[in-house]
Amino acid sequence: MKIPQLKKILREKRLDLALFACIDTEKQNPGMRYFSGYGDVGILVVPQKKKPFLLVPEMQLLTAKRSMVGAIAVKKGTKLLDALKIRIKKYLRRRRIGIDFQETTLFLKKIFAKKIDHAKFLDISKELAELRLTKTKKEISIIRKGCRISDGILRKCLSSLPHMKTESQVRALLESETIKRGCDLAFPPIVASGRNAAEVHHSPENKPLNKGFCIVDFGVKYKGYCTDTSRTFYLGNPSPKEKERYSLVLQVQEQAIANAAIGTRCGRIYDSVVRGLGQYGNFFTHGLGHGVGIKIHELPNLALKSKDKLQEGMVFTVEPGIYLKGMGIRIEDTVLAAKGRPIVFTKFQKKLISIPWY
Amino acid sequence: MKIPQLKKILREKRLDLALFACIDTEKQNPGMRYFSGYGDVGILVVPQKKKPFLLVPEMQLLTAKRSMVGAIAVKKGTKLLDALKIRIKKYLRRRRIGIDFQETTLFLKKIFAKKIDHAKFLDISKELAELRLTKTKKEISIIRKGCRISDGILRKCLSSLPHMKTESQVRALLESETIKRGCDLAFPPIVASGRNAAEVHHSPENKPLNKGFCIVDFGVKYKGYCTDTSRTFYLGNPSPKEKERYSLVLQVQEQAIANAAIGTRCGRIYDSVVRGLGQYGNFFTHGLGHGVGIKIHELPNLALKSKDKLQEGMVFTVEPGIYLKGMGIRIEDTVLAAKGRPIVFTKFQKKLISIPWY
Repeated sequence: MKIPQLKKILREKRLDLALFACIDTEKQNPGMRYFSGYGDVGILVVPQKKKPFLLVPEMQLLTAKRSMVGAIAVKKGTKLLDALKIRIKKYLRRRRIGIDFQETTLFLKKIFAKKIDHAKFLDISKELAELRLTKTKKEISIIRKGCRISDGILRKCLSSLPHMKTESQVRALLESETIKRGCDLAFPPIVASGRNAAEVHHSPENKPLNKGFCIVDFGVKYKGYCTDTSRTFYLGNPSPKEKERYSLVLQVQEQAIANAAIGTRCGRIYDSVVRGLGQYGNFFTHGLGHGVGIKIHELPNLALKSKDKLQEGMVFTVEPGIYLKGMGIRIEDTVLAAKGRPIVFTKFQKKLISIPWY
Repeated sequence: MKIPQLKKILREKRLDLALFACIDTEKQNPGMRYFSGYGDVGILVVPQKKKPFLLVPEMQLLTAKRSMVGAIAVKKGTKLLDALKIRIKKYLRRRRIGIDFQETTLFLKKIFAKKIDHAKFLDISKELAELRLTKTKKEISIIRKGCRISDGILRKCLSSLPHMKTESQVRALLESETIKRGCDLAFPPIVASGRNAAEVHHSPENKPLNKGFCIVDFGVKYKGYCTDTSRTFYLGNPSPKEKERYSLVLQVQEQAIANAAIGTRCGRIYDSVVRGLGQYGNFFTHGLGHGVGIKIHELPNLALKSKDKLQEGMVFTVEPGIYLKGMGIRIEDTVLAAKGRPIVFTKFQKKLISIPWY
């Protein structure tokens, strides 16, 4: 995606090239994935004036060859960084290299500096995040499809819930349904029932599903792009008070989506949510939402005081919640900022669903 | 684990404190997990002379309170780094702070430097990796248990294989069985059948299971610690040539384990594997193994030319493989370097299993 736009940035910042490296499978480089489609161990080189290419270990060549750019294998016994040194020599004029400070460790920078003499490494993280801030048509259609897949998985989850006993079983179902559909997880799913729902990032160990509200926060990664949905079910019979609280969160969530017009400052949407929650405003303890894309957390940031402004083509979550002692409710959709009204991609129903529970 | 040893390092390097930060759920900090047991968003502060503590966003407090150290919540609207600045003031004498260069991005370091005036940030990644290099009794017993769990999952996988049609189905089964047992994945499982097995890091999309060798490379994360096993099954009837190749890899793998005595240089074990593979030595395209622990790839490095020496208490993989056109075989165990003979933790059978396939 957007290689020409990246080259423009390189020109403007007078950089010879940009480097995106993944030297550890646990530290994926989103820039590499974004510009090449390849996300495993390797280095993506984008020269200002020439074609981009991937340098990968020999054993990764077959995978890399399916990417959007050319791939060169580094022979066993040769270090990736040594190969890089030789391969980029001819592109170095000013010896100015752009790297993503958000995704590069101090350790990797040290090796870069050791291998590439007298080079200056400049931060292009802001420019990269901005490139990814609004999505292309192709990206939007991928995310929309991903949301459709995740809706289907949530329906399957709901129909299986009555037969489940533990939070881990629900999580296992979400995960296996994701993989079966050829997707990956966008993040480890949260399944938090009863008093566990009060814990915003509760991790579902082998705990029984408890009566009360049950938050399911889940997303898939489809063709490299994330989705994010939360629904709160009720196990058992909700009291009138509980129904009322749920309705309040839902109403506030729908109002927040309606408020998410192009040009709106994100902090303002946040403020109106806190106002809308009234006496529960203090029990909304996290951000209202975040951009989604190659990464599950991207720009814009829908946080308190956020100055980010919504632009056409941004894809982000809207996820107010309240967490009291012993209970929690969160409702979240993945939404596209569009002309006219925002478009909600995650369509799984939001009316409170209660499941008989004994 | 090993907080006193970390404090000793701080004393020796004349550091006021060590900082381990996770400001992005996608970038976990293994040091934070290792020393505190907590692995989500937050900052672990380990002063040289005082008790370590965690600073976490308010919404994470319940989770952080279950860690091995004290936890302090940062109120909504206050930035974690601003809270840090105030909280660590009293510990700063020399203004020398230890951080893990392998796990800290240039971006985070920039914020640290902005918030903590006139401080010097020194790399303690080597010392940290060395602390984690040999495992404590407690760690060993956790990893051993994890391996037992992963053996059970592989048995389940084998019994279900005859009913599976695609690689993703096998992967989905591995994942859901992992979660059901209260574990996480150590890494995305590899299921590579037929010609896909030639691709070392093949990612199982929705591809049919093909006749021929089928590599399953899989590990769980149990109580924060990884395991790693590969087995190669045969779908259909292997030819005598194929059986012979499998036997060769198995024989070489077992010999490599037998060679992994305390004091041995890892590069030597690698060399003997290449020799043992004879005419197939050139088709062994990756490292022989790696340490496992909090991270799936730790020290020691059992690579070509590696000078790491095996020490008692190291836990690592031994995983030779050969990859020819259209086929691949890999056999991998997680092993403990121990007095006398190395102890193999992954006990799933290694004799070639062939599964009728039509």
